[in-house]
Amino acid sequence: MSACVEISGVKIGGGHFQLIAGPCSVESKEQIIGIAERVKSSGASVLRGGAFKPRTSPYDFQGLRAEGIELLLEARRITGMPIVTEILSESHLPLFEHVDVIQVGARNMQNFELLTMLGRTDKPILLKRGLANTLAELLGSAEYILAGGNRNIILCERGVRTFETYTRNTLDLSAVPVLKELSDFPVVVDPSHALGISRLVGPMAMAAVAAGADGVMIEVHNDPANALCDGAQSLTPDEFDIVAERVRRIWSVLM
Amino acid sequence: MSACVEISGVKIGGGHFQLIAGPCSVESKEQIIGIAERVKSSGASVLRGGAFKPRTSPYDFQGLRAEGIELLLEARRITGMPIVTEILSESHLPLFEHVDVIQVGARNMQNFELLTMLGRTDKPILLKRGLANTLAELLGSAEYILAGGNRNIILCERGVRTFETYTRNTLDLSAVPVLKELSDFPVVVDPSHALGISRLVGPMAMAAVAAGADGVMIEVHNDPANALCDGAQSLTPDEFDIVAERVRRIWSVLM
Amino acid sequence: MSACVEISGVKIGGGHFQLIAGPCSVESKEQIIGIAERVKSSGASVLRGGAFKPRTSPYDFQGLRAEGIELLLEARRITGMPIVTEILSESHLPLFEHVDVIQVGARNMQNFELLTMLGRTDKPILLKRGLANTLAELLGSAEYILAGGNRNIILCERGVRTFETYTRNTLDLSAVPVLKELSDFPVVVDPSHALGISRLVGPMAMAAVAAGADGVMIEVHNDPANALCDGAQSLTPDEFDIVAERVRRIWSVLM
Amino acid sequence: MSACVEISGVKIGGGHFQLIAGPCSVESKEQIIGIAERVKSSGASVLRGGAFKPRTSPYDFQGLRAEGIELLLEARRITGMPIVTEILSESHLPLFEHVDVIQVGARNMQNFELLTMLGRTDKPILLKRGLANTLAELLGSAEYILAGGNRNIILCERGVRTFETYTRNTLDLSAVPVLKELSDFPVVVDPSHALGISRLVGPMAMAAVAAGADGVMIEVHNDPANALCDGAQSLTPDEFDIVAERVRRIWSVLM
Repeated sequence: MSACVEISGVKIGGGHFQLIAGPCSVESKEQIIGIAERVKSSGASVLRGGAFKPRTSPYDFQGLRAEGIELLLEARRITGMPIVTEILSESHLPLFEHVDVIQVGARNMQNFELLTMLGRTDKPILLKRGLANTLAELLGSAEYILAGGNRNIILCERGVRTFETYTRNTLDLSAVPVLKELSDFPVVVDPSHALGISRLVGPMAMAAVAAGADGVMIEVHNDPANALCDGAQSLTPDEFDIVAERVRRIWSVLM
Repeated sequence: MSACVEISGVKIGGGHFQLIAGPCSVESKEQIIGIAERVKSSGASVLRGGAFKPRTSPYDFQGLRAEGIELLLEARRITGMPIVTEILSESHLPLFEHVDVIQVGARNMQNFELLTMLGRTDKPILLKRGLANTLAELLGSAEYILAGGNRNIILCERGVRTFETYTRNTLDLSAVPVLKELSDFPVVVDPSHALGISRLVGPMAMAAVAAGADGVMIEVHNDPANALCDGAQSLTPDEFDIVAERVRRIWSVLM
Repeated sequence: MSACVEISGVKIGGGHFQLIAGPCSVESKEQIIGIAERVKSSGASVLRGGAFKPRTSPYDFQGLRAEGIELLLEARRITGMPIVTEILSESHLPLFEHVDVIQVGARNMQNFELLTMLGRTDKPILLKRGLANTLAELLGSAEYILAGGNRNIILCERGVRTFETYTRNTLDLSAVPVLKELSDFPVVVDPSHALGISRLVGPMAMAAVAAGADGVMIEVHNDPANALCDGAQSLTPDEFDIVAERVRRIWSVLM
Repeated sequence: MSACVEISGVKIGGGHFQLIAGPCSVESKEQIIGIAERVKSSGASVLRGGAFKPRTSPYDFQGLRAEGIELLLEARRITGMPIVTEILSESHLPLFEHVDVIQVGARNMQNFELLTMLGRTDKPILLKRGLANTLAELLGSAEYILAGGNRNIILCERGVRTFETYTRNTLDLSAVPVLKELSDFPVVVDPSHALGISRLVGPMAMAAVAAGADGVMIEVHNDPANALCDGAQSLTPDEFDIVAERVRRIWSVLM
């Protein structure tokens, strides 16, 4: 059994399973608070939302950045849900002072200077596997955080690149039992980014739980068709409600 | 829901889930009958066993070939379990006359002459995805079988090649919901070949069921350490018994 | 330096470089003879042309099959160029009796029954690397041919599958020096299939020669826009003439 | 033909070909100056050397960091060669004030905050393709630099990840003509990191030039067996001398 990491009172790992949900990007106060309330009522315990967005092109929506973090904190005040959001540079660290979990995205998994700085904090870090990184390399990156004294590490599988084109990436669920064999960090799976297609998220979330994941992170948007980012992979709150229920059913028989 | 394929009285797909189990290779009469009895008592309904083995080197064990098929038929007579075994060439087709399910392995997924000949039979065909084939290509290969009039096709995900080296291949479980979205063939998952490590087979078999698979195919060997082929990925009968029970628990909550 | 294989009087390997050219598919008598004459005048010494075509879908053009081989033999009678064409099944072997070089395509690289039968002939075999096969596996397949006593093996790199989508496959030119380090077979490169884009064929053919290839195999079509197969990757005879000249210039400075 | 970028008086692209050479890591004053003098005498015009090293494990040698840059500047004073060295974080930018070319390594290709800061300088940037990034994504990253007004961009192919294990990565030389088709930046190839085996560097450097590269970057070490990093892929100065001569011969016939 993995160790338990505590996220502002919410335990993940060590026998505690959590649903993390929220929009790809924070877009407005109404949007983030509205989604937070809906996913909370469906059973999510941690709110995700992107403020700093790493985009392939500089001309794509880059997120609300500092303002997005403010809106997430506002959503936390209202709903009580701890928040997880991605950091892109160690120079932004002061902006993350009140964030509950700092996410390191796939593109920064080997940004070793950033990892080293995060190792000097005591915040939970959600470390995503890079798009073409081995599990040994993911653990090497975790070691950079550990080396600074921070043991609050949550690993995240989010799909790797292959030749398959129907799905955006290929979700490697064997990462779950392998990472548990090689380390004792909690392991979370993000099926939304891996697949890129909302109707596949449910079955793969259930599979992730059956494979032993300690949490699942799912994108939920109030209006996927008009999302500023990654709408095709986002569930509506009603769809999320169904997936959350199915995920809990799988979890219940693993106990 | 997928269509149902009938394997000598055993239904797979269309709401029917089956466990397929047996050794990588048929090695002797005692071995195949002993394993067949054990996996049957654990709940497996179809017996697998390799007679013709496609091996990277001509100097590796190539299987008992025609004799292996005879031993499988003997195991069927004794246990009543239908058998599935791999064909390597259309010239061997007469030897498969009494085989219940003919398997086309990953290396032959695009052996179109073989597929065309199998389309002219009425036998169930277990068609494995190639090591680097897209799901669209897998369905193209199924189409070769269909074109001859044979609709008894069962698709099988068995892992694809990536850069990851800890596991032998990367099991792409999203293949299950994608194939069900694009076709109505039953879909089986083979975690043993995908992972190459027996202790990962259980969690991934459970994940396969949660993802919606209609069957799971698992390698079981009475003495993995001395198996003539792929011992590292084989469960013992006792281990299989535990995995079978867990797989059924996942299946039970999906109904 | 690699060993030399003799193709009906044309030497390849052991210091002999050859250009192999022709259409993806044989389409008609006029087409194959016309192209053969043009590529011969540009310096090609072996004529390629597909008679049996392995296609992803059974509803795509499957080649002229036995008639295609007849047309290739006719082109040989008229131009004197030896011919290379692909075999899809050992049951077709009698049709290849007068073919100079039998090609085993990427999809059949691990069709071990076919390789075994080809090992019992004394014909030159052009063995292509599979789409996701390691170089060690390519040599394992060559070993199946060798095991039967046939040493006339020519290896061919034709691109592997990766995540890149701009080119059809990724041409792995390091295969050339690696295969020469691990074996003494001549090595040919097929940039046409690897890239799928005719205007990239020239630079990559030149690179293949610089990497040490003993031959380059290039698709040439009299009317690429109306080719029955793979027109986008085919050079016109005029374009081939320029590429052939550039390839020879690279070869000349390696001596 | 690509645009020309000027590196402190040395032109690359636009018909100008350059050899970049030096050790993986700067280890000492004697080492870097000794190697610089040797590679200069063999025809290299730009000196490479790692000061900040991105390593999978925090317990591996991390480079001499600021001191390494000082030693590179010292080598430049003595030999007159401009230097290229990798940056790991925008917070280190002041240390790179006198560096001629700033390298962005594969792991930071999508560190968009770093790219944005480099776009605000006027220094030449050597931007390496990520380990599993498409060419379109590489150009997206270049766009982040361009967006700030810096047009001095040199692209670098250094191998991508595939299933092949004999070489460290798979060098995708088709990147050269594709990048030239899609942009007008000079393109450099780094065969040393791609292959990981010194004896393959020569053939692939020659192939890179034949494919149209504007430069080749090669690792050279005075004592590869005792290098602190990546010795297996480093040429000795004598070996580099031979490779440099062969590369020039290929270049000479392309004019």
